[in-house]
Amino acid sequence: MPVYRSPLRDQQFVIHELLDATAHYRDIPAYAEVDADTINQVLEESGRFCAEVLFPLNAVGDAEGCHYDKANHEVRTPTGFKAAWGQYREAGWNGLGADTAYGGQGLPALMQTAVGEMQNSANQAWAMYPGLSTGAYECLHEHGTPEQKALYLPKLVSGEWTGTMCLTEPHCGTDLGLIKTRAVPRDDGSYAITGTKIFISAGEHDLADNIIHLVLAKLPDAPEGSRGISLFIVPKFVPQADGSVGARNGIFCGGIEHKMGIHGNSTCQMIMEDAVGYLVSEPNKGLNAMFVMMNGARLGVGMQGLGLTEVAYQNAVAYAKDRVQGRALKGAAEPDKPADSILVHPDVRRMLLTARAYAEGGRALGYWTGLQLDVARSHPDEAKRREALAQVGLLTPIVKAFLTDNGFRAAVEGQQVFGGHGFIHETGVEQYVRDARINMIYEGTNGIQALDLLGRKVLRDNGAALRAFGAQIQAFVEAEGTSEAMNEFVTPLADLGDKFTKMTMELGMKAMGNADEVGAAATDYLRVAGHLVFAYLWARMARLALDKQDDPFYAAKLATARFYFARLLPEATAHMRALRAGAKSIDGMDLAWF
Amino acid sequence: MPVYRSPLRDQQFVIHELLDATAHYRDIPAYAEVDADTINQVLEESGRFCAEVLFPLNAVGDAEGCHYDKANHEVRTPTGFKAAWGQYREAGWNGLGADTAYGGQGLPALMQTAVGEMQNSANQAWAMYPGLSTGAYECLHEHGTPEQKALYLPKLVSGEWTGTMCLTEPHCGTDLGLIKTRAVPRDDGSYAITGTKIFISAGEHDLADNIIHLVLAKLPDAPEGSRGISLFIVPKFVPQADGSVGARNGIFCGGIEHKMGIHGNSTCQMIMEDAVGYLVSEPNKGLNAMFVMMNGARLGVGMQGLGLTEVAYQNAVAYAKDRVQGRALKGAAEPDKPADSILVHPDVRRMLLTARAYAEGGRALGYWTGLQLDVARSHPDEAKRREALAQVGLLTPIVKAFLTDNGFRAAVEGQQVFGGHGFIHETGVEQYVRDARINMIYEGTNGIQALDLLGRKVLRDNGAALRAFGAQIQAFVEAEGTSEAMNEFVTPLADLGDKFTKMTMELGMKAMGNADEVGAAATDYLRVAGHLVFAYLWARMARLALDKQDDPFYAAKLATARFYFARLLPEATAHMRALRAGAKSIDGMDLAWF
Repeated sequence: MPVYRSPLRDQQFVIHELLDATAHYRDIPAYAEVDADTINQVLEESGRFCAEVLFPLNAVGDAEGCHYDKANHEVRTPTGFKAAWGQYREAGWNGLGADTAYGGQGLPALMQTAVGEMQNSANQAWAMYPGLSTGAYECLHEHGTPEQKALYLPKLVSGEWTGTMCLTEPHCGTDLGLIKTRAVPRDDGSYAITGTKIFISAGEHDLADNIIHLVLAKLPDAPEGSRGISLFIVPKFVPQADGSVGARNGIFCGGIEHKMGIHGNSTCQMIMEDAVGYLVSEPNKGLNAMFVMMNGARLGVGMQGLGLTEVAYQNAVAYAKDRVQGRALKGAAEPDKPADSILVHPDVRRMLLTARAYAEGGRALGYWTGLQLDVARSHPDEAKRREALAQVGLLTPIVKAFLTDNGFRAAVEGQQVFGGHGFIHETGVEQYVRDARINMIYEGTNGIQALDLLGRKVLRDNGAALRAFGAQIQAFVEAEGTSEAMNEFVTPLADLGDKFTKMTMELGMKAMGNADEVGAAATDYLRVAGHLVFAYLWARMARLALDKQDDPFYAAKLATARFYFARLLPEATAHMRALRAGAKSIDGMDLAWF
Repeated sequence: MPVYRSPLRDQQFVIHELLDATAHYRDIPAYAEVDADTINQVLEESGRFCAEVLFPLNAVGDAEGCHYDKANHEVRTPTGFKAAWGQYREAGWNGLGADTAYGGQGLPALMQTAVGEMQNSANQAWAMYPGLSTGAYECLHEHGTPEQKALYLPKLVSGEWTGTMCLTEPHCGTDLGLIKTRAVPRDDGSYAITGTKIFISAGEHDLADNIIHLVLAKLPDAPEGSRGISLFIVPKFVPQADGSVGARNGIFCGGIEHKMGIHGNSTCQMIMEDAVGYLVSEPNKGLNAMFVMMNGARLGVGMQGLGLTEVAYQNAVAYAKDRVQGRALKGAAEPDKPADSILVHPDVRRMLLTARAYAEGGRALGYWTGLQLDVARSHPDEAKRREALAQVGLLTPIVKAFLTDNGFRAAVEGQQVFGGHGFIHETGVEQYVRDARINMIYEGTNGIQALDLLGRKVLRDNGAALRAFGAQIQAFVEAEGTSEAMNEFVTPLADLGDKFTKMTMELGMKAMGNADEVGAAATDYLRVAGHLVFAYLWARMARLALDKQDDPFYAAKLATARFYFARLLPEATAHMRALRAGAKSIDGMDLAWF
């Protein structure tokens, strides 16, 4: 049977010791009341809810999947999902990070990030329902008119209604400039929306009374391409002025996808035929409105990667301790028994430590980014907001792609520890591999994240955000440079930092001559960037652990840091070498020869 | 809809140009008649059979899976599987490599290897039925008494009956010394077998009239551990002396597993209650008897990895050409159309070339090993047989682990090319990821392969087999060392060869002090070994291609070789670095801290 316990001790270590989050919150009026006790209480209670309510439904959701009722265009979620949604709403979890003006609890993004990790460890498919709803909430909160906000936000915050993001169409996902969904103005100021959207997560389900779709569409006179996209609210039931649910709107689920994983989430084809829609933001500015919430959404997907990393690790450890087979190579560890637990094998521990180092490093990176998102959104000092926003922008594609790649790898390593037992449904770990796979694809494929990082976040602003990040590393290196105990971490960190800077400058030069150099380098570049950030955070964590080696928590932290530097960081070298080969290593193959 | 065409041109390149197989066969009387025409005809006809008969059943098998009829302990295979089995038998494919004395065609292992690749590209789950049967045939052919051979082999060769290998039990797979299945001698010379086996591929099905299980069990007086294991024939129906099917034996399928992939193959729990069994080989020598056929079986799993690499590549290419979205970074490739095909993006081509380089390199390695297996088994000169057997022994764990790891990576990269469409069943590519996953686990996990390579094949014989392999690389490097055109391949090959030798010696020294050094290094070591073999074979293929650049086949071959050296080979550097950290990078983490 699968196991999950929330990693409370490590969460506290990251939030309080590594990030010292409450010190930051003291400077942010909106969060001045968020003290350590509040944080710990939220972590503990959410951990309990996730482990006790959501986790037992994870295998159920995978086995049952969602059911589409063609006659009524309705979707039934797996057994227990609706009841869990009720408990979730009642406990107030749905409004955790939402504006108190609309009934939310107004807690920081960092807390949403930590809670998100746990929800995804427990049940990613379920967690996507509130996840998408939060995305719609944030978009409307940022871009809705006061009337739209008053009408929709309280219901989205309470969880009476849920939301979706309707972007992809059958012929395009990455290139939204090609969408065909049309919005024709009607006399009453609303629009008639017609078109087909696919891959709409939580597009139709039985959890809530109404579903608020945020739909990208084109006005009749829209410019070509991505400059001609507008955003519309298309509710399943058109709300009355008093907020009660009105007439059924012309937006219907035309079917659900049969997928590799996240079976418990309904992935819908949505068909609109003259559906009533309401413009959000200005005409032709829809893509901008969507992009503003991308940082939060992509951080959320990164937390899906982290959540699966953690739960895959926990299950693999439990199995490795329990499974008794073979003998330690250097002699029986438990000579009285017929065999040793497989934990004695260095190769098994290598797999476990890989997942563990990815989990703890990912937690540090994800939570750090969450904290900077809070500063970017709410700090009273504009310069600090701007600086934090640039850092969030730089880190977001890394969080999304690096943590989801790592999540998939950790799930695969965890499954490998189980041997043949990992391949059958019963043990639950193969689900993690299947679920983890989507995180590398949706919300912008990891290849798109890599282009975003190198092309937009690094090269477009001539490396300004990267230099600001590098300055932090430099400061740390200088502060610890004379510490003999820290040498094993500081030296490779400083070395990678120097190489990364040099490599980035080289790439900038090459890209001026040939834009394909960016595309040819991007994925390798992102992996190196991820390791640079991990090396920095692991070095800082090692620093905190060094003086407390009597406590097993810190002893394990230091051992994991050492494992990371010795066994995982070397991957960066290979990617730097591969990347340097440039576009010509790919262009040598004529398109016609494929 | 998924696509597959057998890679005939590349198969011919490897067999005739790279390996010059028929020149080897001229020295082997058993295969003296195997000329290029024969080989080409087998490749073409098998390719047609795989593409036309097996491939259309692949998605069917995945969707339907096998059905277990509890009342009768019977398993029904997916629609079409039985009919395809009939066509397969009638066309004589089942006896391709089998002894002509028992009705086989007596073709070389190399041909079985090539045919195996295609069968696995087309339908791995189906291909496992004949695959397991071949394993049982080989084991009995090597170890059976003349009477056993006369009774069982003709039926196994014709495909009237099939076979299985029953090793794993619920509590042990890797460590077979722990098995609990018992064999008690009976007065008539047979044995009463009682016990439970799990994960028995093709253990029960509706394809054949009888199933011949080869079962590992312990005699009452057996020594402890792996020295006390014996091998038994346990037929589903006990054959009469005349070869007709007799009484139902006490071996029953107790259930089938619900698995991540290979749904079309029935993975059975087999329960034996005083089942009639017949001893094969000598008492307590069962594991040896099994091990003799391991080279062939593990080469077969490597071909599963290769088969999925190839088909994942082909489907990703088809999609990338067809999918029109976005624009080339360096300007529109097809300005008349609303967007370019995604093949223009360097990152997409990076993914495709990764799969392609793994496929073509894997084909070279797998077929080369198959050819050496023919020499090892059938060459008239004993010294040549011994030498080839040592090379096969060295290459086998690399073929099994490196090609199946690569197969999984290729399937994942291929799926990534599809974006969201790759995550849904309909496009067929997510099945390749799920199917590919088992190849890294069964027939000895890839971690076990790594221990076999480093511990047994390299260190135990003080590197003799490795030196013989290194001498081939050295000869090639010396022959091509002065060629300017070959410099880009020869220099990194020679460099990696030197580093590999040095690293192996270091490891040998360290392992004498601490056996855990082997376990801590093994997986990284195998990945480096795989790249060394690939670099050697890719350099040789580049040599063949260099002078024929007017022909697109050779131009593509050279471009792929360059991609391999520039973008994939650098991975070896990272593994060498990780490996050098040694056991202390893992031992730092106390077992109690996990």
